[in-house]
Amino acid sequence: MERKLGDRICSVARTLDILGDRWIFLILREAFFGVRHYDQFQKNLGIASNILSQRLKILVNNGIFTKKKDDTDGRRITYRFTEKGIDIYSITLALLQWGDRWLADEDGPPLILHHNTCGHRLEPVMCCAHCGKPVNAREVTYENGPAIKKAQARLNNGNE
Amino acid sequence: MERKLGDRICSVARTLDILGDRWIFLILREAFFGVRHYDQFQKNLGIASNILSQRLKILVNNGIFTKKKDDTDGRRITYRFTEKGIDIYSITLALLQWGDRWLADEDGPPLILHHNTCGHRLEPVMCCAHCGKPVNAREVTYENGPAIKKAQARLNNGNE
Repeated sequence: MERKLGDRICSVARTLDILGDRWIFLILREAFFGVRHYDQFQKNLGIASNILSQRLKILVNNGIFTKKKDDTDGRRITYRFTEKGIDIYSITLALLQWGDRWLADEDGPPLILHHNTCGHRLEPVMCCAHCGKPVNAREVTYENGPAIKKAQARLNNGNE
Repeated sequence: MERKLGDRICSVARTLDILGDRWIFLILREAFFGVRHYDQFQKNLGIASNILSQRLKILVNNGIFTKKKDDTDGRRITYRFTEKGIDIYSITLALLQWGDRWLADEDGPPLILHHNTCGHRLEPVMCCAHCGKPVNAREVTYENGPAIKKAQARLNNGNE
């Protein structure tokens, strides 16, 4: 990493170390739309091939995509989500939802999402897994978890 | 924008046009931790002042932060979330949750979140506002919304 990303040990920073790039998210968006092949990513995104190759490598090396030869055409490579990759969907939905709410113009939202599970239009909302209620920033507090406590303990021991 | 971000009219791309930058997200993270002042952002993130100033300007110009003189010290500037800004919390939670799940080391999660509304540890999960069930990428389908339909209609008219 070329930049110092702050002193906090933080899952947001760790995620951004991998995903903190617009091209990465747009490649993921295309993959969630069903895109699996290099040429299709390139066509849909108008992305330079060196940038696309480098980003796909990041996604494969970080276990987000698998890279396999096509069953039907061995010269063709197929990129597919791993479980770790498909789990990024919540982030993509959160980006989409905020854009729909705050950045749509008078033409309205670009896409309509359907939740096939219940048959209704999907409005994604971040909820608490325990109580099921929507989460509001003002109702959440933090405490240091085990990773920060252990790092602090190591730091204190080193300073003695 | 220096880059062509694909041809799709898309709320993900629009959001990334503003937020698609690691520093922006780390500034937002600090703000969700309660940071309001320039010097504190700088100290916590170890960020160069030209980068911090430029990113704060983006956040203010896009209506995510308000910038006001302190009531108690007129020389000091306070940055606070607007409603549009506080609504980014879902994105931050989604980044954090994915990092906790997939990138934590043996020390465990860096932070423990508490949902004061229900009194339990917060595990954020993206749900359908209609049925309340967690959303899985495999259960969602898309259709073009009004913004894409209108853009296509304009394109067709222009080609006649």
